[in-house]
Amino acid sequence: MYDLIIKNGNVITSGVKGIADLGIKGGKIVALGDLSGGRADLVMDADDLLVLPGAIDAHVHFHLYVGNGLYSADDFYTGGKSAVLGGVTTVIDFVHPVHGEDPFEAHEKRLKEAEGCPVDYAMFYCINERSGPLMDAVPELISRGIAAFKVYTTYKPAGIYLDDGGVFRLFKLCGKHNGLVSVHAENDAIIETGIEEAISKGELSPVYHAKTRPPVVESEAVRRLMFLAKNGGAPVHILHVSSKEGLQQIRMAKAHGAHVTGETCPHYLLLGEEKLEGADGCLYTMTPPLRHKEDNDTLWEGLRDGTLDFVTTDHCPFMKSDKEKNKNDFTKIPKGIGGVGTLLPLLYSEGVRKGRISLERMVELLCENPAKHYGIFPEKGCLLPGADADIVLLDPNGKWIVTPESTGSRCDYSVYDGMELAGKIRKVLRRGRVISNEGKFLKSDEPGNFIKRKTA
Amino acid sequence: MYDLIIKNGNVITSGVKGIADLGIKGGKIVALGDLSGGRADLVMDADDLLVLPGAIDAHVHFHLYVGNGLYSADDFYTGGKSAVLGGVTTVIDFVHPVHGEDPFEAHEKRLKEAEGCPVDYAMFYCINERSGPLMDAVPELISRGIAAFKVYTTYKPAGIYLDDGGVFRLFKLCGKHNGLVSVHAENDAIIETGIEEAISKGELSPVYHAKTRPPVVESEAVRRLMFLAKNGGAPVHILHVSSKEGLQQIRMAKAHGAHVTGETCPHYLLLGEEKLEGADGCLYTMTPPLRHKEDNDTLWEGLRDGTLDFVTTDHCPFMKSDKEKNKNDFTKIPKGIGGVGTLLPLLYSEGVRKGRISLERMVELLCENPAKHYGIFPEKGCLLPGADADIVLLDPNGKWIVTPESTGSRCDYSVYDGMELAGKIRKVLRRGRVISNEGKFLKSDEPGNFIKRKTA
Amino acid sequence: MYDLIIKNGNVITSGVKGIADLGIKGGKIVALGDLSGGRADLVMDADDLLVLPGAIDAHVHFHLYVGNGLYSADDFYTGGKSAVLGGVTTVIDFVHPVHGEDPFEAHEKRLKEAEGCPVDYAMFYCINERSGPLMDAVPELISRGIAAFKVYTTYKPAGIYLDDGGVFRLFKLCGKHNGLVSVHAENDAIIETGIEEAISKGELSPVYHAKTRPPVVESEAVRRLMFLAKNGGAPVHILHVSSKEGLQQIRMAKAHGAHVTGETCPHYLLLGEEKLEGADGCLYTMTPPLRHKEDNDTLWEGLRDGTLDFVTTDHCPFMKSDKEKNKNDFTKIPKGIGGVGTLLPLLYSEGVRKGRISLERMVELLCENPAKHYGIFPEKGCLLPGADADIVLLDPNGKWIVTPESTGSRCDYSVYDGMELAGKIRKVLRRGRVISNEGKFLKSDEPGNFIKRKTA
Amino acid sequence: MYDLIIKNGNVITSGVKGIADLGIKGGKIVALGDLSGGRADLVMDADDLLVLPGAIDAHVHFHLYVGNGLYSADDFYTGGKSAVLGGVTTVIDFVHPVHGEDPFEAHEKRLKEAEGCPVDYAMFYCINERSGPLMDAVPELISRGIAAFKVYTTYKPAGIYLDDGGVFRLFKLCGKHNGLVSVHAENDAIIETGIEEAISKGELSPVYHAKTRPPVVESEAVRRLMFLAKNGGAPVHILHVSSKEGLQQIRMAKAHGAHVTGETCPHYLLLGEEKLEGADGCLYTMTPPLRHKEDNDTLWEGLRDGTLDFVTTDHCPFMKSDKEKNKNDFTKIPKGIGGVGTLLPLLYSEGVRKGRISLERMVELLCENPAKHYGIFPEKGCLLPGADADIVLLDPNGKWIVTPESTGSRCDYSVYDGMELAGKIRKVLRRGRVISNEGKFLKSDEPGNFIKRKTA
Repeated sequence: MYDLIIKNGNVITSGVKGIADLGIKGGKIVALGDLSGGRADLVMDADDLLVLPGAIDAHVHFHLYVGNGLYSADDFYTGGKSAVLGGVTTVIDFVHPVHGEDPFEAHEKRLKEAEGCPVDYAMFYCINERSGPLMDAVPELISRGIAAFKVYTTYKPAGIYLDDGGVFRLFKLCGKHNGLVSVHAENDAIIETGIEEAISKGELSPVYHAKTRPPVVESEAVRRLMFLAKNGGAPVHILHVSSKEGLQQIRMAKAHGAHVTGETCPHYLLLGEEKLEGADGCLYTMTPPLRHKEDNDTLWEGLRDGTLDFVTTDHCPFMKSDKEKNKNDFTKIPKGIGGVGTLLPLLYSEGVRKGRISLERMVELLCENPAKHYGIFPEKGCLLPGADADIVLLDPNGKWIVTPESTGSRCDYSVYDGMELAGKIRKVLRRGRVISNEGKFLKSDEPGNFIKRKTA
Repeated sequence: MYDLIIKNGNVITSGVKGIADLGIKGGKIVALGDLSGGRADLVMDADDLLVLPGAIDAHVHFHLYVGNGLYSADDFYTGGKSAVLGGVTTVIDFVHPVHGEDPFEAHEKRLKEAEGCPVDYAMFYCINERSGPLMDAVPELISRGIAAFKVYTTYKPAGIYLDDGGVFRLFKLCGKHNGLVSVHAENDAIIETGIEEAISKGELSPVYHAKTRPPVVESEAVRRLMFLAKNGGAPVHILHVSSKEGLQQIRMAKAHGAHVTGETCPHYLLLGEEKLEGADGCLYTMTPPLRHKEDNDTLWEGLRDGTLDFVTTDHCPFMKSDKEKNKNDFTKIPKGIGGVGTLLPLLYSEGVRKGRISLERMVELLCENPAKHYGIFPEKGCLLPGADADIVLLDPNGKWIVTPESTGSRCDYSVYDGMELAGKIRKVLRRGRVISNEGKFLKSDEPGNFIKRKTA
Repeated sequence: MYDLIIKNGNVITSGVKGIADLGIKGGKIVALGDLSGGRADLVMDADDLLVLPGAIDAHVHFHLYVGNGLYSADDFYTGGKSAVLGGVTTVIDFVHPVHGEDPFEAHEKRLKEAEGCPVDYAMFYCINERSGPLMDAVPELISRGIAAFKVYTTYKPAGIYLDDGGVFRLFKLCGKHNGLVSVHAENDAIIETGIEEAISKGELSPVYHAKTRPPVVESEAVRRLMFLAKNGGAPVHILHVSSKEGLQQIRMAKAHGAHVTGETCPHYLLLGEEKLEGADGCLYTMTPPLRHKEDNDTLWEGLRDGTLDFVTTDHCPFMKSDKEKNKNDFTKIPKGIGGVGTLLPLLYSEGVRKGRISLERMVELLCENPAKHYGIFPEKGCLLPGADADIVLLDPNGKWIVTPESTGSRCDYSVYDGMELAGKIRKVLRRGRVISNEGKFLKSDEPGNFIKRKTA
Repeated sequence: MYDLIIKNGNVITSGVKGIADLGIKGGKIVALGDLSGGRADLVMDADDLLVLPGAIDAHVHFHLYVGNGLYSADDFYTGGKSAVLGGVTTVIDFVHPVHGEDPFEAHEKRLKEAEGCPVDYAMFYCINERSGPLMDAVPELISRGIAAFKVYTTYKPAGIYLDDGGVFRLFKLCGKHNGLVSVHAENDAIIETGIEEAISKGELSPVYHAKTRPPVVESEAVRRLMFLAKNGGAPVHILHVSSKEGLQQIRMAKAHGAHVTGETCPHYLLLGEEKLEGADGCLYTMTPPLRHKEDNDTLWEGLRDGTLDFVTTDHCPFMKSDKEKNKNDFTKIPKGIGGVGTLLPLLYSEGVRKGRISLERMVELLCENPAKHYGIFPEKGCLLPGADADIVLLDPNGKWIVTPESTGSRCDYSVYDGMELAGKIRKVLRRGRVISNEGKFLKSDEPGNFIKRKTA
């Protein structure tokens, strides 16, 4: 006796695709296959639909304080709602301790903020001091189920920069205590030197955000971080790879057996630097910046050949007015764009349907791989018995025209506004319950949980 | 309503492990998971047992004619029986056309010989002429479902040698027509030069079989074949890797993105050249020859780190008397040993139980990977709905002492005779029917089928 | 008291260039620099002239028997005369033993043939049997001063092919006895397969000579030979590199520390496959064949970046009538062209004067490097005290229009006929004596000597 | 008519060795070879002696201000005197501009300080600001003959640190204006993190100087700097390589065609970390620190195989009392040791005579290579006509026991004190004049000159 049977879907999971039923009980998938003899409280017909594991957006910034009273546009509720509508059932957000704050209190405080999030969430933990209580807390934070430690090699003024001394110490600690590290890799000093030069020349329009962060800024840092990780004895994950040069470093390192993984984001796959040159260039600012057509193509190739392991969004939108306040001074525009609500639809329409990646590969990139990497598999990332019943029913014959409103985000613009995408999400289930139906978000009385990383 | 439910097994498939039921209907697995509500004609309890996909031995030589009236000791019936008892439910054997024979008739004739084999079988096709009807038949043979073309870069006297001209042409044809090539890679001229020297010095005892085929013979050929494959535009599979040097070539090629796969055999993992120095050294002769402890260890490492993709046996036993007839002249001893019946038991006992590989990795190596490579997945190689119900029930608490008789082979000796192995195969099912029970072979009235490679 | 002082020349040697006098006594250079106070029997003024070490053509075939009563067009006298006129004062030719011939008698016989050669000569020794007296003679031949052993990996019908077994044995012997090996590297079986196909299709015009020897034929063999050399423990020299792909293999091997050197020839630097498509295509046939513009450019780059170590000519001309006899059947055209007389003039005019290489690099490529490699430095290859007084006086302000006659060769055509070259050779001295003056060959009563390789 | 003839010496220059005379006029070598007919004001007999080009110590710190009123122990006079006695006839020292100082005045001031130095000197120029007048002065400083720009990637408190932003800008400028950069490569943040930790644990004895600068500190920085150089389009020279790991990075980069050169120092070749553990550990402190036997051996190998291009001393001694003032707190001990006076004697005795390098290679490492790299060849670095007559007469049959006094340095200790070295310097000439005779310094009325780099 199941709680629910989803019948006759075209189920894609674990590299296999085929018509099958899903049997669900207690929020879990408990059976897969021909369940025609089985009974259930509820039977849902998935004829003609693709049945996918709920996607994981392993890189989002909900309710992120960026100084001067400004927060990213989505909090955990609106961000989670956007996730749901886009077929994302798990996100990974961040704990950002303030200097001097107790590391565990910072963690608890952030978990508090996340309460009520409509989807499950894991947490990165940002390390921003090379020694002291924060670094000392690393082993205990691993035990508490932190997904990974996050390191920024840039953003000194924001107080989140960590120098190589701290990074190397962190790698050694994680090597010893089985922790993970995910890095935002850009060479800070080269950027700062470039920005000083731009300021001195009055080159402040949005495109100079890209010009002052040329690809070498990324490739050098990626290369260095991988080297320090190897010497420290820990694996390393490279966040939001944006350039051909950065990708090439990862490819070479993997070819030589490094324990490294990498991700990119839809905007690095689909958009280019020319967006920054328009009148609304400020709306396209994020870090790393947009690159060029050749980078887009190379990143798709990296998704196909295994150089990159997952796709995330780095979801960090700001209201149009916040972006436009200093639209002609790139140094003052808050960096980041939204995306959690368009991750799966874009990958399906622009990736699978345009022949750039297979459907099975999309499921690996959005579900299986991030789940395995961050230690939440097989509860997340697949539809095999034992998995949480986080499920997306996608209609390959439908279509969706992106609008800011339809993404569910609070942000009042989307860089994909007006795009017509092949495929439409019909239903999304989280732990066996329907939380989105035909583009309508269904508020659940059972909000998302904090998901701890299993360290094996 | 299922034909059969196997309840509560510890199912390992597709990288996941967990307690689950298997629902079987029409010889297929149709459901996986909690099927407690489902009805079935028959319910089998698998409490405490490991439930694995039937293993694939992707390299066997049943009923192989080696000249002088001599055949390998097992025909398709006894070989298949041995396979069953060892948990192997699919084998890949060979079509060896004689010079001048019609390529398609040779194929048909071989399929005829295979009839009655108790397990399913796919077929390699050996190409031994660099031009002419055989080479011309390549595209059509691909359409007929050949698993892969087999190439020998040595064995000139046996009439199966193919020179680089033929090999390169074959790679180009397979690149164009989506065919596969699996190669026995040894440098013929270096071997022949060494054998001539050994003969002239009277160095004929079995150990000189190894001395005249030093690792460079393998590593050079592996390296060359991979280079020709790359230039010809086709993937290549390296059969029976025996040495550290050979493995290293594959590792480097993979690190640089080559489309190459590799296999090794249990004897290269477990036995060493010193066996050839004993009084019964002749019983340990096969090609490539046994190597050293360092090679054993490196090959296990290759299985762990992904350099090698599957394990096969190159099963090709000869009766003791045939081996011993010219026991002091290695040039005349028929080369080859048995193994199909001990493949899975050895990998489980010596690999999994000794901590060298995980249980999940063993299933990849013996089931999933060869099935995917040779285009017979997911019918073979997994236990997901849609797969053939080829299943092994393995008791981790049992044990098995290897004897020639208990392997089911007709061959009257085993190089593993007397070894005590952890784990015991309780039952083996093929397409939903029990064909082995507690070490007893159960003859089925539905023998094995020829399995075609899917090229899509 | 010197025999001769050459005053005020612009001397280029050992990477240095500057105005200096050369003091010569007993056929040797004994002093370099300001010798204004020194006395001499004869003083020669070199004002405005470049003073270079005599060039070494480390790859010529004088009086080569190619079967059917045919010899290459130049014997040691006419070939040597052409060398002299082109500023080449040392050549390296070949001993080609016939199967069954005593190895040392073959050597003596060839030295006899070389007597009277106007320039000094060293000798390669071709090994064409994988075992037997020839292979056994290797250590003694090294002692007798053989420059290097020559190996052909193709040309089976000509009886000079050596298989990998012989090659590997030779590398091991040379590794042990400090011998050198120079290889003609092409994959025989791929060529033969291609030629069979060409014949079957009637594709016999000269351009099919190139089509049946695509670059992979070279790159595979180069790669394999370097691998066998490394495993055999000997250095290896790659003769006449013709293609980008072949060059790339050497570049990678050098980058990984291999003991490998390489050469190319002027025709691979300056001419392309399109020459084979003309009415006189037969006149442009040699092995390996001409390639394309991209190969030309890559080979110049290889000369600059050190991938290639010297330039030779593979001088092996045939009379026009011999080339044209079967002009429409590439399999029957004798392969080879002349070049010893144009080596230095072409490198100077097309290399140095067109800015592709520096003058100092040209002297390395034509003098210092081959002398050092083949153990005849510093007697040959430089103008430092102790060197043989083999000297070229080159007028940078002169020019030369190539004609077959002016090259001094007996051959009645030149692929460079009509080319106007910057620079003109004024005088050539061998061991202190003028043997060419203003393009006129001066017969000496002291002909060339056999030069032994020093192995210390 | 020469000023001086040095007769019958065993001259080693430009890779060649042989008995020859040297003819000298106007401070220059004007002739080389058999000058027996030449006349000279003075004839010096060099029978049985090795005649070498004067060595170049391309890395010395004379009169270096290190703060707190402290200077390195040698000024240009005593340092130069020590150089002379050790056979060094050219040194390269540093301009260290103070923040805010006019770049050209700093240069002039330093040249003033160098006046009276008994040997010739070139100058590095230290860049310690990422933008501003100093960076702007780079092109002009190149024109004024600066040998190379020196970059420190550590030593923040000393005011000489340059961050990656400045380094990258400098590489781009030097790529454009044909400048050179030589780097002290250590990862500053990892060092500082380690020192903080050592201080917090009270680990202050001299050996912790080494422990807080593990090899990864060097290898990471070397790797990064080479990457930035390549991306900036400039060559880079790695100063004082101390570790196997650092060397390995250079080897790999060279293998992939990077424009990089490297040097090491005698103390990294001969001494080990255990010296820091003794009671007088403070006397062995320099940066990078001493390593281990395996590093010593690997560095010798690097000298042989071409990974390293020259040997220098980083001569920077301090008086014993200055070293011992804070002997138990490594953070306060002034770093550096002497060495200019023992460079050539150590290389000859421990390198050549112990069979680690050939005599010809020693001359390349100490003379030819640094001269070529820093644009002062062939005036310096060889004994060919046109070179300055800077000459060392070394007696291979003599020996020398090192004492602080006999090195000529003002420093009151030597880490080589008491070592008995094979070989003795008999005479040293600078520009044709004897400035040292049998270990006695002869003050000349013609002191050393500033030597400009030639950029053509």
